[in-house]
Amino acid sequence: MPKYVLLLLLTGCAHFLFSQSKAVEKIRADHQSRHYELLKEYMDFLAIPNTMNDPAQLQANAEYVAGMMKKRGIQNVRLLHADTEGAIPAVYGEVISPGATRTLIFYAHYDGQPVNPDKWAEGLSPFKPQLAGAPLDKGGQFVDFPAPGAAINPDWRLYARAAADDKAGVFTILNAYDAIRRTGLRPKINIKFFFEGEEEKGSTNLGEILDKHKALLQADAWIICDGPMHASGKKQITFGVRGDVNMNLTVFGAKRPLHSGNYGNWAPNPAMKLVRLLATMKDDNGRVLIDGFYDDVAPLSASERAALAAIPDPAPMMQQELAFAQSENPDMTFLEAITTQPTLNINGIVSANVGRLASNIIPTMATVTLDLRLVKGNDYQRQIQKVIDHVKKQGYYVLDREPTDEERLQYPHIATIRSGTGYNAQRTSMDLPISRQVIQAVKSTTTQEVVLMPSAGGSLPLYLFEEKLNTPPISVPVVNYDNNQHGENENVRIGCLWEGIETIAAIMLIN
Amino acid sequence: MPKYVLLLLLTGCAHFLFSQSKAVEKIRADHQSRHYELLKEYMDFLAIPNTMNDPAQLQANAEYVAGMMKKRGIQNVRLLHADTEGAIPAVYGEVISPGATRTLIFYAHYDGQPVNPDKWAEGLSPFKPQLAGAPLDKGGQFVDFPAPGAAINPDWRLYARAAADDKAGVFTILNAYDAIRRTGLRPKINIKFFFEGEEEKGSTNLGEILDKHKALLQADAWIICDGPMHASGKKQITFGVRGDVNMNLTVFGAKRPLHSGNYGNWAPNPAMKLVRLLATMKDDNGRVLIDGFYDDVAPLSASERAALAAIPDPAPMMQQELAFAQSENPDMTFLEAITTQPTLNINGIVSANVGRLASNIIPTMATVTLDLRLVKGNDYQRQIQKVIDHVKKQGYYVLDREPTDEERLQYPHIATIRSGTGYNAQRTSMDLPISRQVIQAVKSTTTQEVVLMPSAGGSLPLYLFEEKLNTPPISVPVVNYDNNQHGENENVRIGCLWEGIETIAAIMLIN
Repeated sequence: MPKYVLLLLLTGCAHFLFSQSKAVEKIRADHQSRHYELLKEYMDFLAIPNTMNDPAQLQANAEYVAGMMKKRGIQNVRLLHADTEGAIPAVYGEVISPGATRTLIFYAHYDGQPVNPDKWAEGLSPFKPQLAGAPLDKGGQFVDFPAPGAAINPDWRLYARAAADDKAGVFTILNAYDAIRRTGLRPKINIKFFFEGEEEKGSTNLGEILDKHKALLQADAWIICDGPMHASGKKQITFGVRGDVNMNLTVFGAKRPLHSGNYGNWAPNPAMKLVRLLATMKDDNGRVLIDGFYDDVAPLSASERAALAAIPDPAPMMQQELAFAQSENPDMTFLEAITTQPTLNINGIVSANVGRLASNIIPTMATVTLDLRLVKGNDYQRQIQKVIDHVKKQGYYVLDREPTDEERLQYPHIATIRSGTGYNAQRTSMDLPISRQVIQAVKSTTTQEVVLMPSAGGSLPLYLFEEKLNTPPISVPVVNYDNNQHGENENVRIGCLWEGIETIAAIMLIN
Repeated sequence: MPKYVLLLLLTGCAHFLFSQSKAVEKIRADHQSRHYELLKEYMDFLAIPNTMNDPAQLQANAEYVAGMMKKRGIQNVRLLHADTEGAIPAVYGEVISPGATRTLIFYAHYDGQPVNPDKWAEGLSPFKPQLAGAPLDKGGQFVDFPAPGAAINPDWRLYARAAADDKAGVFTILNAYDAIRRTGLRPKINIKFFFEGEEEKGSTNLGEILDKHKALLQADAWIICDGPMHASGKKQITFGVRGDVNMNLTVFGAKRPLHSGNYGNWAPNPAMKLVRLLATMKDDNGRVLIDGFYDDVAPLSASERAALAAIPDPAPMMQQELAFAQSENPDMTFLEAITTQPTLNINGIVSANVGRLASNIIPTMATVTLDLRLVKGNDYQRQIQKVIDHVKKQGYYVLDREPTDEERLQYPHIATIRSGTGYNAQRTSMDLPISRQVIQAVKSTTTQEVVLMPSAGGSLPLYLFEEKLNTPPISVPVVNYDNNQHGENENVRIGCLWEGIETIAAIMLIN
């Protein structure tokens, strides 16, 4: 490359960096003046229940989000429906910039995981947002909502279902744009907004919505605002996700619960059957023993390996905080474990009751919910089939429905396996020009290093954007990693909301 | 033996049998004229909740039972308290027969297992007794309570918690005496009544009550009315019980629930740990693999073996009805399995949730409730220790409380084991004179064979009667074997109540 070209590039780059960092300062000053009202609106938003299996709840959230968008002057706000009966709509909106030739579309989702309020800490309720001075499991105490003008500590936590996953995404995207608008900054690109309502269900109808609204959803890249940042608290950009599919597996004993004294040693115990079956699936080192389980795994590219190697290992710090002595797979680093390998994970097991609710019975059935995370190369249907084949190899007669009495009397070992909807992994190259611009924008908002992840451990159906729209997705998460997402006591660190606004605004302001 | 002695004996015996069978006819005629009012009172009794962990509920039952006794002219009715704080009283009463030199004391218990109403069939509620024309799982339909005088089919079922276990015992004992009284029959022995309120909890304070009221509770034998009859529907006398002890075992993962994508393959999964641990405890043939598990077992005597061999094998019929293809231990017959061997049985396993309630998490803990049934020779504390030693041998650090953070960080495998109160097995010789008289009395009430069991599979703390009072217990169960005792949809066959009244009355009328 001739030297003057390099010089020109560097000068242009410096100019861009300078104006970008000035923009970030404006954005920062704006949100700092509005923490009270921003937080108040967010708590109202979180108070609307959004459990994934309740269409009426989700519709109420969609309408609330559309209202937030209109309030911010976003144009063409509408609900995008799939044709499928009962599908939950996505919420769309756009800001067209005069003369823009490129478009970014910003994604988050407004639905949340199911809740079991009994499991939440005392004083918490999933849909009554509550502030605490620090994480409750680190001695944090509840904090009253501050008066207008009072200081709001960025280290406070806000507890509610979806506080992190993923109403935080909706909140930061909309307020990033709002800050741009309020400060008079002018985006050079078109900005589109897309908020999904079926992510936790596995985005059952996202493909159909993308297909149906293909023209509307044209863009140069999707910016996905979901999932946690690096455990160090550093900002992060992620270029891929694992795929996911789950299954419920039930094994059977006698048709009715039996007194464990009057029948014990004689009647088959389905809980014992299930533990013996599951124990064949993994070895002492967390390695899955199912035939061919790792056969399809596509290795990382050289640049992806390099990016992975550059990331500081968060394991020692996290292990200390999570308080366990040994990881499941001691032969792999944390990042290898969550990015390069598929999983077989038990989400839950239930057979009858334990503790004070236990009875002296032999249960009638035992059920496990398994989820399989997938990496590039795996196919979710093939992966499920490997598990089914393994169960058959252990002598089980496998059904996708309850067994009949005749089947119960004929087969000593019966398993009913029902698999959920799944999808495959996805990876965007870090070397695309748009990837590099997004990296640059995020870097402009922080003095710290930005963590570049070839793939997240978590799952989103990002393969759809490639498959349906031929558009690369890039993930820019904004929430703290210790957010209890999907479990009880979900929470977001308040400061992450403000930093997220800066991150997303910077991306909206790329050239 | 000289012939005339034999003749005398046979004549006496024939006379006794004749008068006994006439007495049974009177008892039968009496209860047949009163089915409506008897059933009505029983439904009122079942409507009083009696879950084992609720002292207020149990107190209400004790008072109700005392009222039933007073109504029947039973003397010296009183609640027998232990000194232990919070102990639930037993209900006592007596009928002293002029000139009697011998005494039988009749036992049943009025407390019931915990209930999970969600698991009961639609239209059933544990404490709203409901009649059905046949077992619900065999197509039975609900039946309205009949008008006075309308026929009550003995094959109807009455659904409620404790309908079989063991308010049926209280009901038949009190109404057996009532029928004797009403028909003007005169018992030759003293009759005592003892209704316990802590049986389902393992009779925690029974020993103390027996100690404290030793003089009041003197008798020649305890007649225990609890547990199910033979699966054939034949009457049964049982001369022993298995012992029982249970434990809750919990293993641990990370301190908070983790997203299975962001941490899967890395964070330890306690559900997988638990299944791998439990799978080491039994082989494919249901044989317990814990060191020394079967070492203490006392073999049956020759007469006990003979009695066992004389009992028709109920397994093929039960297996057909319970709908499974293979028993847990194919090397043992049903009777061998439940009377001659100790068990290690999973009552329940719970780790997080399954099915629609499942989340994509790695759970924080997994718990199993195990119960260990014991046979003569086993000691319950020794048996628990064998399990603990086995868990340690699998590399676990075993605690009887939650681990501290320091312990979690130090030990890769931690199990918290809390064992409940337990007790040992008991066996009364079938060759005692009182044993022979009870056998004879029960035989006088039926044209069918009477099944004589050396030991039941179930457990009662019958060792206490030998240890505290030096009195042999003999069990005379009255309820149908398919009663779902301890599980959901507990029920009693109505005819069993009437036949039970005859059985118990005949025993009360021995010479």
